[in-house]
Amino acid sequence: MRPERSFPAQVASEGLAIGRISLRRMRRSDARPKGTPEEEIVRLEAAGAAASAQLERLIGRAEAEAAAILEFQAALLADDELLDPVRARIARGEAADAAWQQAMDGQIADYQGAEDEYFRARALDLADLRDRVAELLAGGGDEAGAPAETGAIYVGTDLAPSRFLELDWDAYRGGAVVKGSSASHVAILARARGVPLVVGLAANESMLVDGAEAILDAEAGQLIQDPSAETRARYLRRAAEREAEARRQASHLGKPALTAAGERVLTYINVDDPHILPAVDPASCDGVGLTRTEFLFSGEGGLPGEGRQLGAYKALMRWAGGRPVTIRTLDAGGDKPIPGLTPDGESNPFLGLRGLRLSLARPDVFRVQLRALARAAIEGELKVMLPMVTRPQELDATRAMFRQVVSELLAEGIPAAMPKLGMMVEVPAAALNIAAFDADFFSIGSNDLVQYVTAAGRDCEAVRDLYDPLEPGVLELIHRVAEHGRLTGREVSLCGDMASDPKYLPALLDAGLRAVSVAPARLARAKAEIAGYG
Amino acid sequence: MRPERSFPAQVASEGLAIGRISLRRMRRSDARPKGTPEEEIVRLEAAGAAASAQLERLIGRAEAEAAAILEFQAALLADDELLDPVRARIARGEAADAAWQQAMDGQIADYQGAEDEYFRARALDLADLRDRVAELLAGGGDEAGAPAETGAIYVGTDLAPSRFLELDWDAYRGGAVVKGSSASHVAILARARGVPLVVGLAANESMLVDGAEAILDAEAGQLIQDPSAETRARYLRRAAEREAEARRQASHLGKPALTAAGERVLTYINVDDPHILPAVDPASCDGVGLTRTEFLFSGEGGLPGEGRQLGAYKALMRWAGGRPVTIRTLDAGGDKPIPGLTPDGESNPFLGLRGLRLSLARPDVFRVQLRALARAAIEGELKVMLPMVTRPQELDATRAMFRQVVSELLAEGIPAAMPKLGMMVEVPAAALNIAAFDADFFSIGSNDLVQYVTAAGRDCEAVRDLYDPLEPGVLELIHRVAEHGRLTGREVSLCGDMASDPKYLPALLDAGLRAVSVAPARLARAKAEIAGYG
Repeated sequence: MRPERSFPAQVASEGLAIGRISLRRMRRSDARPKGTPEEEIVRLEAAGAAASAQLERLIGRAEAEAAAILEFQAALLADDELLDPVRARIARGEAADAAWQQAMDGQIADYQGAEDEYFRARALDLADLRDRVAELLAGGGDEAGAPAETGAIYVGTDLAPSRFLELDWDAYRGGAVVKGSSASHVAILARARGVPLVVGLAANESMLVDGAEAILDAEAGQLIQDPSAETRARYLRRAAEREAEARRQASHLGKPALTAAGERVLTYINVDDPHILPAVDPASCDGVGLTRTEFLFSGEGGLPGEGRQLGAYKALMRWAGGRPVTIRTLDAGGDKPIPGLTPDGESNPFLGLRGLRLSLARPDVFRVQLRALARAAIEGELKVMLPMVTRPQELDATRAMFRQVVSELLAEGIPAAMPKLGMMVEVPAAALNIAAFDADFFSIGSNDLVQYVTAAGRDCEAVRDLYDPLEPGVLELIHRVAEHGRLTGREVSLCGDMASDPKYLPALLDAGLRAVSVAPARLARAKAEIAGYG
Repeated sequence: MRPERSFPAQVASEGLAIGRISLRRMRRSDARPKGTPEEEIVRLEAAGAAASAQLERLIGRAEAEAAAILEFQAALLADDELLDPVRARIARGEAADAAWQQAMDGQIADYQGAEDEYFRARALDLADLRDRVAELLAGGGDEAGAPAETGAIYVGTDLAPSRFLELDWDAYRGGAVVKGSSASHVAILARARGVPLVVGLAANESMLVDGAEAILDAEAGQLIQDPSAETRARYLRRAAEREAEARRQASHLGKPALTAAGERVLTYINVDDPHILPAVDPASCDGVGLTRTEFLFSGEGGLPGEGRQLGAYKALMRWAGGRPVTIRTLDAGGDKPIPGLTPDGESNPFLGLRGLRLSLARPDVFRVQLRALARAAIEGELKVMLPMVTRPQELDATRAMFRQVVSELLAEGIPAAMPKLGMMVEVPAAALNIAAFDADFFSIGSNDLVQYVTAAGRDCEAVRDLYDPLEPGVLELIHRVAEHGRLTGREVSLCGDMASDPKYLPALLDAGLRAVSVAPARLARAKAEIAGYG
């Protein structure tokens, strides 16, 4: 019997899981000795076959649009034009890994340099394929999207967002990784899906035992390997309590959110990545309160074209089935750099050229997004929301530009319409001067608002106690905006993390808010909390 | 006749100057061929003698405290214990420059490692001396604090703050340097003294002519070499207008500031560096509204001890002659890093561990400053001001710590008193929640307040138009704080750049402020502006 052993970690997505450790190979096989050319060819073909099999499995589960992308990758893999240059390199004595990487890098560069936007966008898919095969060559070849048995806890060095999306989270109950941060993209995905996840796990491969029983405590932040009977019993009780609470909350999911006094509170969801939508029942919410379009811009394939954006926006609206869909224009900059778009070397990026400021500074990029949005506007109830608005002139300039884009599209014979145009309220100047903004609706971005009001960075550990959503000045500004909305008949919602935290939600309702937007995994809890209010 | 030629630059300190270019050697003589050991010894002795002569000149002009520091340096230079190791290195074949630098670096490291605080502080003086002689060895030997003739314009690659302070700005009329920024320490000094200065001059040595007539236009930002008769006449007219305006403004200097309606407005000065005080008549102001104690922490000699701080604070109070002196506790962090004290690698230093936050996190450093302040408090009317206060608890914690320090000093038999304790209002949370702060007085830090309210960094060129002191939210918060002060009988002043800019001063008086603190060079203009108000 091994003794109980506990490894501390940081919580990235709250929750509990009890299961067996499914240990991913934690070291990359960089030091693997190179085989003969014949052996290296075999390795390449095996990795290619494994990648094809993975892609086929993913295609079977994917939405139409995602499936098309994956099919393109599978077709490439089957094409000798792609593999022959790699085989030639191996024949000249290179290892399979290096040959694959270099041949693919060259092809990706060619695609990136293409005149045609379609081909430039394909560079992204090629990079995806490059990484998949490279990981298999590095020894990840035996790892599929599902563990050997259900009820496993995924434990590894790192977890890329794309890998997270392809893992079967019905079989895996949670994850623990050595790298990463609670602010990372994969942490956001895990919270959205409600998958318990810890990062910064203080352990290495020699300490961990594949297949050992373990408890993932993503409340306190630890992974407990070989728990004692007592520990196990304690966690089983706690898990049962959480389960009962979740069932209680889930019972609210199918109904509109009403306070105890019977007041209706609109509850929207935040969409960070449309991949999560298949797991969410549109009937459980009042629509989408925030779509972060950064997911479209985060790939390596350059900036997304009008067609690709339109496809994504339409998919959202199809999912919503007539419910309002709020799409925020690109909110790059700050802590979200985009190569070739956001400025480098800002001394304080949160106080720099970000959000709408950047879009107005780059009309070439902004117009593409406005065109795609104007075309999507004919598909349902689209609400377009602008981030980081500071002064009324910025909103007015955007409205003028949007109208011009709609006219141009109609002149080209392309169906388009002007959607509702609203704004985020996250800059104190905007909240203080709210009556001067002619927006169709408002959404309070509490994450940024709190950091500007308290002058305490949301990612700065040393001033974390000052970053307080219940700071009186923050609540006063929220109240002011809510009151302005009430008096002028314009919707005011809130889409920051405050809205989904039971610690803060009552204060928001006190401040007069009657619309919130939360991560899908927080929807049941928010609705339950609202039902208990008043 | 050379044709007129104009070189663009950025304005660091506004003004006009007409004179002859005094061109400092712009290239360092790094490529100088090494002489024989005998020649190198001669170079060393010549540089030493020139440095001694410079120090003697400076001692003749300096205040008592500064003179003592310079005398220590002069004594070191006369001491063979310092020079013999350098001579030994040269005898072994090293060049004078390298021998000097390495011998001094070794000694400085010894001083820095000393147990005794006094010796550690001396490391700073040694470094100063090292740089002075090194510059003379590098070919700066013929450059004294004054140009060959009065009415010169100093033109060079760079201008260190210490060099700025030793130049004779009655003889030099202004400066133009290739490096630097308008936010640099030397720019602050130039503005405080009213010396016209441009930085980022787009020129190199081959374009510039030593002794050529030139116009320094530190309004538009250019240096015009060999101006045509027409250009010259135009600038002479403009200079005459500015001169008349300055005389008109100066006529207000000797009187208290009154608005046209006869209301008294307290006008204090900001002190960035006590070196400027000899040039300011205390009777021209109502006291010191802000002392930035960072000047004490900016040297290389480690953090300043209680004695050194007390000396500086006493000197300020002696200068003020009974007028109130406001001293701000250390406001490090943000754009003011201090090695060994401020955190490295913050993603947004303006939203990080700065000002009072840092002082409270480092009670070892903070207590030394509070002790020096408590001891200075018995010398006159001392007001101590805390930067970056966000919540009332921070003010309360500081007051408790201060009281304890006073008790300890009295128990040690050292005279001390609790001064008035006030706070900067620069974080929106504090302005919004002002009634919750039990401060003896308030001073609005508009530079930071504007950047937090508008979420636009004060040093970020790309969002400069959003960084607007007249933003309605900013004026509302200023009005709120002023009104709170009026109702509770506590002084509210404003010590940011807004207070000394005629574009903004009327709005501040409209908002209810009746106390401002400005750079000494802006005092006359501010008083004249106040006289025209109402």
